[in-house]
Amino acid sequence: MSEFKYRRLDRSDAAVLLVDHQSGLCNIVGDFSPDDFKNNVLAVANAAKYFKLPTILTTSFEQGPNGPIVPEIKEIFPKSPYIARPGQINAWDNEDFVKAVKDTGKKQLIIAGVVTEVCVAFPALSAIEEGYEVFVITDASGTFNKTTRDAAWSRMEAAGVQLMSWFGMACELHRDWRNDMEGLGALFSNHLPAYRNLITSFNAHK
Amino acid sequence: MSEFKYRRLDRSDAAVLLVDHQSGLCNIVGDFSPDDFKNNVLAVANAAKYFKLPTILTTSFEQGPNGPIVPEIKEIFPKSPYIARPGQINAWDNEDFVKAVKDTGKKQLIIAGVVTEVCVAFPALSAIEEGYEVFVITDASGTFNKTTRDAAWSRMEAAGVQLMSWFGMACELHRDWRNDMEGLGALFSNHLPAYRNLITSFNAHK
Amino acid sequence: MSEFKYRRLDRSDAAVLLVDHQSGLCNIVGDFSPDDFKNNVLAVANAAKYFKLPTILTTSFEQGPNGPIVPEIKEIFPKSPYIARPGQINAWDNEDFVKAVKDTGKKQLIIAGVVTEVCVAFPALSAIEEGYEVFVITDASGTFNKTTRDAAWSRMEAAGVQLMSWFGMACELHRDWRNDMEGLGALFSNHLPAYRNLITSFNAHK
Amino acid sequence: MSEFKYRRLDRSDAAVLLVDHQSGLCNIVGDFSPDDFKNNVLAVANAAKYFKLPTILTTSFEQGPNGPIVPEIKEIFPKSPYIARPGQINAWDNEDFVKAVKDTGKKQLIIAGVVTEVCVAFPALSAIEEGYEVFVITDASGTFNKTTRDAAWSRMEAAGVQLMSWFGMACELHRDWRNDMEGLGALFSNHLPAYRNLITSFNAHK
Amino acid sequence: MSEFKYRRLDRSDAAVLLVDHQSGLCNIVGDFSPDDFKNNVLAVANAAKYFKLPTILTTSFEQGPNGPIVPEIKEIFPKSPYIARPGQINAWDNEDFVKAVKDTGKKQLIIAGVVTEVCVAFPALSAIEEGYEVFVITDASGTFNKTTRDAAWSRMEAAGVQLMSWFGMACELHRDWRNDMEGLGALFSNHLPAYRNLITSFNAHK
Amino acid sequence: MSEFKYRRLDRSDAAVLLVDHQSGLCNIVGDFSPDDFKNNVLAVANAAKYFKLPTILTTSFEQGPNGPIVPEIKEIFPKSPYIARPGQINAWDNEDFVKAVKDTGKKQLIIAGVVTEVCVAFPALSAIEEGYEVFVITDASGTFNKTTRDAAWSRMEAAGVQLMSWFGMACELHRDWRNDMEGLGALFSNHLPAYRNLITSFNAHK
Amino acid sequence: MSEFKYRRLDRSDAAVLLVDHQSGLCNIVGDFSPDDFKNNVLAVANAAKYFKLPTILTTSFEQGPNGPIVPEIKEIFPKSPYIARPGQINAWDNEDFVKAVKDTGKKQLIIAGVVTEVCVAFPALSAIEEGYEVFVITDASGTFNKTTRDAAWSRMEAAGVQLMSWFGMACELHRDWRNDMEGLGALFSNHLPAYRNLITSFNAHK
Amino acid sequence: MSEFKYRRLDRSDAAVLLVDHQSGLCNIVGDFSPDDFKNNVLAVANAAKYFKLPTILTTSFEQGPNGPIVPEIKEIFPKSPYIARPGQINAWDNEDFVKAVKDTGKKQLIIAGVVTEVCVAFPALSAIEEGYEVFVITDASGTFNKTTRDAAWSRMEAAGVQLMSWFGMACELHRDWRNDMEGLGALFSNHLPAYRNLITSFNAHK
Repeated sequence: MSEFKYRRLDRSDAAVLLVDHQSGLCNIVGDFSPDDFKNNVLAVANAAKYFKLPTILTTSFEQGPNGPIVPEIKEIFPKSPYIARPGQINAWDNEDFVKAVKDTGKKQLIIAGVVTEVCVAFPALSAIEEGYEVFVITDASGTFNKTTRDAAWSRMEAAGVQLMSWFGMACELHRDWRNDMEGLGALFSNHLPAYRNLITSFNAHK
Repeated sequence: MSEFKYRRLDRSDAAVLLVDHQSGLCNIVGDFSPDDFKNNVLAVANAAKYFKLPTILTTSFEQGPNGPIVPEIKEIFPKSPYIARPGQINAWDNEDFVKAVKDTGKKQLIIAGVVTEVCVAFPALSAIEEGYEVFVITDASGTFNKTTRDAAWSRMEAAGVQLMSWFGMACELHRDWRNDMEGLGALFSNHLPAYRNLITSFNAHK
Repeated sequence: MSEFKYRRLDRSDAAVLLVDHQSGLCNIVGDFSPDDFKNNVLAVANAAKYFKLPTILTTSFEQGPNGPIVPEIKEIFPKSPYIARPGQINAWDNEDFVKAVKDTGKKQLIIAGVVTEVCVAFPALSAIEEGYEVFVITDASGTFNKTTRDAAWSRMEAAGVQLMSWFGMACELHRDWRNDMEGLGALFSNHLPAYRNLITSFNAHK
Repeated sequence: MSEFKYRRLDRSDAAVLLVDHQSGLCNIVGDFSPDDFKNNVLAVANAAKYFKLPTILTTSFEQGPNGPIVPEIKEIFPKSPYIARPGQINAWDNEDFVKAVKDTGKKQLIIAGVVTEVCVAFPALSAIEEGYEVFVITDASGTFNKTTRDAAWSRMEAAGVQLMSWFGMACELHRDWRNDMEGLGALFSNHLPAYRNLITSFNAHK
Repeated sequence: MSEFKYRRLDRSDAAVLLVDHQSGLCNIVGDFSPDDFKNNVLAVANAAKYFKLPTILTTSFEQGPNGPIVPEIKEIFPKSPYIARPGQINAWDNEDFVKAVKDTGKKQLIIAGVVTEVCVAFPALSAIEEGYEVFVITDASGTFNKTTRDAAWSRMEAAGVQLMSWFGMACELHRDWRNDMEGLGALFSNHLPAYRNLITSFNAHK
Repeated sequence: MSEFKYRRLDRSDAAVLLVDHQSGLCNIVGDFSPDDFKNNVLAVANAAKYFKLPTILTTSFEQGPNGPIVPEIKEIFPKSPYIARPGQINAWDNEDFVKAVKDTGKKQLIIAGVVTEVCVAFPALSAIEEGYEVFVITDASGTFNKTTRDAAWSRMEAAGVQLMSWFGMACELHRDWRNDMEGLGALFSNHLPAYRNLITSFNAHK
Repeated sequence: MSEFKYRRLDRSDAAVLLVDHQSGLCNIVGDFSPDDFKNNVLAVANAAKYFKLPTILTTSFEQGPNGPIVPEIKEIFPKSPYIARPGQINAWDNEDFVKAVKDTGKKQLIIAGVVTEVCVAFPALSAIEEGYEVFVITDASGTFNKTTRDAAWSRMEAAGVQLMSWFGMACELHRDWRNDMEGLGALFSNHLPAYRNLITSFNAHK
Repeated sequence: MSEFKYRRLDRSDAAVLLVDHQSGLCNIVGDFSPDDFKNNVLAVANAAKYFKLPTILTTSFEQGPNGPIVPEIKEIFPKSPYIARPGQINAWDNEDFVKAVKDTGKKQLIIAGVVTEVCVAFPALSAIEEGYEVFVITDASGTFNKTTRDAAWSRMEAAGVQLMSWFGMACELHRDWRNDMEGLGALFSNHLPAYRNLITSFNAHK
C-alpha cells in the first residue's frame, strides 16, 4: 500500500460552491470562448442538481458593475443558500457563507467561479486550510487569460486542491452507469455536443 | 461611383441551404470546439427561421455512418424541403435540391454545412456559376482542421463567394433594430452568451 | 507603368469614422486582449486628432445593453459630429451619418469599430460602392474571435477595402518625420510601449 | 449566369504530380505533424491510384541529402513515369517532366510536394501559364512553417491555382457515392481515423 | 544518495492497461489530431506486444453510443483479458478488471485510455493507492481539449503518477539497442514517420 | 484541520520588489504583448502604491545596454529605496538590496521583474531560503518566450514560491471592498479595460 | 495559354532593397522569434550577395531611437548604395533611393524590411505603381504582431506584390542546382539548420 | 529560516552533459523552430566552454540513422570525454559515461539533449537517484512536440530536477557582471539577437 489516499468525490459527502458567476464578471473571462464557458458553468450546475448535492450560491457586489448572478444558475437552485456578499472578496471571509458550508455537513467541496485566481482560489485555499477536501472545476472557472489561469492553478495545486473538469466530477460522483443510465446520459447529451451526436447516431442505427 | 456593387443580404431575396449537418459528420469537425459549433449552427437555423427565409435541408447518406441530421435542425424546419441525397456529394448535382432552390425564387443563397471544402464549397461554386449571389456562413461550416478550412475559404473567395458569420448575416438581414428589437435581441441573447450578459446587466441596472 | 494605382492616405483628403466603440460592445471583443484593443482604439483616435482629420463618431443604441461610447473617445473629439443612431445597424443607412461624411468633403475614409463584420464592414462596403477609398484600421476593429475576423477581412478585401494598422495609417499620413518629429514621436511613445522603450534608452545614452 | 466558371476536377481529365516527397526533405517540413503529413501524402497517392489518374513522380537530387523518394509512394506507382531531375529546381524546367505531363493528355493538374513554395509553387505557376487548370493539395504539401506556407499560398492564389485538401479532391473526383461506395469508403477509412470510427460504430450498431 | 528512487519501467515487472479506446469515445477526443492519436494508440499497443507485456483491455458500455473497441487494438491482443464493463466508470471498480491486473503479478502499470480525466485518471489513482507504480502514456490518452487535459495531468501528478510518452515507455523498457536492434527499429519506423525517414535516408546512403 | 497553511498576503506584512524593469530589458520580453506587459507592470506598481506597501526598486547595469528603469515606475516611487546594482545579477547578492528588504521588517515579499528566470527567480529562491514568504506576480514578470517562462515557473513552484497575478495580489491585499470601494475601483478601472467598461455601462444605466 | 504570366525571379533582372533593418526597430518585431528573424534577414542578405544582385540599403533616422543598421548587413554589402533617409518614411519618397533603384536598371525588386506594413509595404506599393515587379520576402520582414502582418500582406497582395520566403527567392533565382551545387548548398547549410543536418548525415553515411 | 535550500549553480562544482545532439535526431525535434533550437544548443555549449565547466559528450548509435554529433559541438570541445554509446539508451547505463561524470568530481550536473523524455530524462533521473543536483536546460533539449515535452518535464520535476534556460544557467554561474563583463556580454551578443541589438544601439548612442 502506498501513502497516497485517493480522495474520491462521494455524492454523500460533497457540496458545491458556485462563486460569482455574475453577468459582468463573466464578460471579462478570456480563457474560454463564451459558448464553452456558458456550457461548462451550466453543466456544473446541472450536475450538482442531478446529484442532489447541497449547493451554495454567492455573489460579490451584485448591485454594482459585477452585475447580477447569471439567471440560469439562480433558476436551477431556487431554494439554495444565496449569499450576496456585502464586500468580502474571499467568500470564506463571509460568516454566512462559511456557516452555509458547514451546515451542509459535507467535507468535500466542489468549487467553480469567476475569476479563478480570486473568487475560486481564495476560498479554495481557506477551505483546504480548514481541512476540507477541495475540488476545483477548472472548465467552469474563468479568468482574464491563460497566464493568470496557469498561475492560479499552480497556487491551488501546491495547496492540495484537486483540479477537475465538470465531466470528471460527474463521472466520479456517478460511479456506475447502472445507477441511472438515463439521467447521466441526459446530462451528457445536454452539455457535450459530441456525445449527443454519438447518441443520435446510435439511436438512428440501433 | 466605383465598379464595386455591394451585394447585400436582403430578406426578401435570400434562401438558406443547410447541408449535411449530420450527427456523424459533425463529430469529425475539428476547427471549432463542439460547443461553439453547435451554437453557431443552431444560430444560423434560428436566424433563418426568425427572418422567415425559405430554408432547404439536405443530407448525405443519412442511413450510413454519416448519421441522421442533427435533430434540432429538423425540428426548427418541420415543413422545409428536405432532400436526403442518395449519393451525390455535391448537393447541386441532385436535381431535387436544385429544383427546391429554384422554387424559392431567390437569388441570394446563404449556405452552411459540413464539411466546408466539400458539402459547402461544391454547391457554393456551382451556385455562383449559375449566377446566384452566394454567402457562406463560415462559423456554422466545419471541417477537419484549420488547414483544410483555409484552403476551402481560398477557393470560395476566388469564386466570388462572400464569407460571413451568422451574426453578420443576421445584422445585414435585419437592417434596423427598430424593425423588431425584441426579436433580434432574443436571437442574440440565445446564441451570444456575452451579449446575453450585457442584457442581464442592463436589465438589472436600468 | 502598371495599372495599379497606389491609393495613399493623404491628410488633406481623409476623414475618420469611429463606429460603435461602446462599453458593452467592447467587452464582447475576443480577437484582441483588452489592453491591446484599448490601446489601439485610443491610438487611432489620437492619430486622427494629431493629424486634424475630420472625425465622425457614431453609436448604436447607446441607451441599451451596448452601452455608451467609451468616454476617452468622446473626450478626444468633444466637437466632432456625433450620431447616436436610433436603430440602423449599418451606419451608412443613417442619413445624418452619411451627410456628416459628405460634409467633410474628403474621399478617403478611415474606419474602425466594433464589431468588425458588421459595424465596420457594412459601412465600408457601402462607402466603397459610393466611390470612396476605404481604409479599415484592423487593429482597432474587434469582433468575437479570429474566425469571424478572418471572414470579415475576406469580404472587405474582395470589395477593395485597404486593410491597415493604426501605425501604418499614422506613418502614411505623416509622410516625413521632418514634418514634426516631436509630435509623431509622442504619438508612438504613448501607444507603442516598445518604441517608448527605445526612446527611453536613447535619451539615457545620448 | 455569372462570369465565373466552376473548374471542377474531372477524373477523365486530371493527372497527378507528386513532387519531391523525399525522405530528407520530408524531415524539414514543419507546418504539419509528421503523422498528419505522412497520412495526407499517402492519402493523395492512394486517391490518385483509386481514381486511376495518370500520376507522375519526380525527385530532386535523390542521391544527395534530399534522400530517396518515400518508398511507399514508389510502391503505389510502380509503373508511373519517374523523373529523377538532375538539377532543375522547378520540375517544369525539366523537359522529360513536361513531356510526361503533356503525354497524359490531361488539362487538369493536381500537385502536391515538398516544399510548398518551391517544389509545388514553381511548377504550379508554370503550368498555369501554359493554360493548365492547377489544383494544389495543400495538406499533402509541406514547408518550413506557417509563415512560409501562407506566403506560398498567396502567390499561388494570385495566379489562379485552386487550393484543395486531399479529401476535397477525392470527393470532387468521385461525384457520387453510388459510383463505388465500397471503394471510396475504404479510402476514407484508411486515411481519416474519425471517419473510420464512424464506420466502426455504424457496423457495430446496424 | 538522495531520497529519490528512480522507478524505472522494467519489462519483467510491467503490465499494460488499455482503457476504453472505443470508436465513439475516440471521436470526442479533441486534444490531438485524429492521425496523431490513432498513431499513438497503436504505437502503445504495438510496443506492449513487442515487449510481450501482459495487456488488459477494457471497455465501457460497448453496446451503446461509446461504440466497440477500436478493432486494431483487439486484433493485436486476441488472447488478452478483455473486460467489457457493465457499468463501472472507474475500471478499478470492476472486480474482474482488478483481478486481471493482479493476476499479471506485475507492480508497474502502464495505462492509456479515453478520456484522460476519467477512464485513465480514475484507475490510475486507484492503482496508486493500492501501491502500484503507475505510468500514464499521455500521448495515447485523449480528452476533450487541452484545459481538461491539463487538469487531469495535474491530479495524476499530485498522486505520484509518472507521465510518459509511448516513445519514452518503449525506450525505458528496451534499455539497450543491442537487445534487439531490428525489433525496436521496426517499432519506431512504423510509428514515427520522421524516424522512418532517417532510416530511409540512411539505407540509401550507406 | 489540514497541514496546509494558507499564507495569505497581508498589507501589514508585505513589501514589493520591482527588479530590473529597464527600457532595454523590457524590449526583450517575448511572452507578453508590449501593451499587456506595460499595463501589468504599472498595475503592480500602482497597487503597491495604493496599498502603501514598502517598495524597493533595483536595476542592473542601468548605464549600459539594459537601459534605465522605466520612468513611470520611478515616478510612482520617488522616495523608495533604489538600488542600482553595480554588477550582481541576483539582487539578493547585493548587500544594500538585502538590507533594504530587511529594513522593511516585512516577511512577505511580492516580486516582479525582467527576466523571469533570472531577475525574478534568483532573488525569489534566495528569499525563500531565508524564510520569507514569496509571491511572484507572473503577469508583470517577463522573459524571452513561453518555454523559458514555463521553466522559470517550475523552478519557483518547487521552491514554494506562490505564483499570482497582479489582480489576485490586489484582491488578496484588499480583503473587503468596503475598506475602500473607490480606491480599488479606480485601480481596476485604470488597469483592466474590461472592468472599466463594466463601470462605464453601470454608471450609464444606473 | 492562359492570361496569367509567371513573373519569375531572374538573377539578371533583379535588385534587392533592404529597408530599415536597424537595431532598435528589429527589437519591436513581434511576429518572429528573434533567432528566426535574425537568421532570415541574414539569409536574404547572403542570398543577394551570392547571386550578385545589386543591393540597396536604406535606414530611417539612424541617429535616433531606431538605431543603426544591423552591422552584419552593412558588412555584407560594404560598397552598396546606402541611403540614410533624413526623414522620409516611405523610402520611395527619397530621391536618392529611387535613383539608386533606377540605376540598377533592373525591373524586379526584392524587398525586405522592418516594419512590414510601413517600411516594406509603402515602397512596395510605390514600386508596383511605377511598373516594377515586386517580390516581398515575408520571413525577413517583421512587424509588431500577426494581426498587423496579416493586414500588411493583404494590402500588398491586392496590389500585385508577390509574397515569398527567402528560400523560395534563392531557389527561383538559382534555377538549377548544377549552376553551382557547392554555393547554394553552403547558403542553405548556413541558414537552414534542418538542411545542414541532412548534409551532415549524408556526408557521414556516404 | 525555511527548509528550502537554494541549490544554486556553482561554477566550481558543475559539469555539463550534452546527450545525443546528433544530426538525425535533431531533425525530429518539433517543439522548437530549427533556428531557435540550433541557437540554444550552441549557446549551452559556448556557455559551458566560457565557464570552463568539464563537459562530457555522448552519442547514441552514431553510425546509424541517428547520425553523427552536430559538428559545431564537437569543435567546441575537442578534448572533452566523448562516449559513443554502443547501445545503451540511458547514458547512465554506460559505465564509461558514469565514470567520466564521476571523474569530474562535481556534484551539479547540467544536462541537455535530444530527445527530452529519453536522452535527457533518463540520465537526469538516474543522477538524481545517485545524489547529484541536476539542472536540465530545457531550451536546449528537444522532443517531438509540446505534449511529449510537457510529460517529460512533469516526470523530471517530480524527481527534483531543476528546469532552467541556457540564459538562466549562464547568469547563475556568472553571479556578477564584474567578474567579466566582456565575456558574458559576448556570449549574450552571440546567442541573443535582441540583446545584441541593445548593445548595437548602446554603442551607437553612447
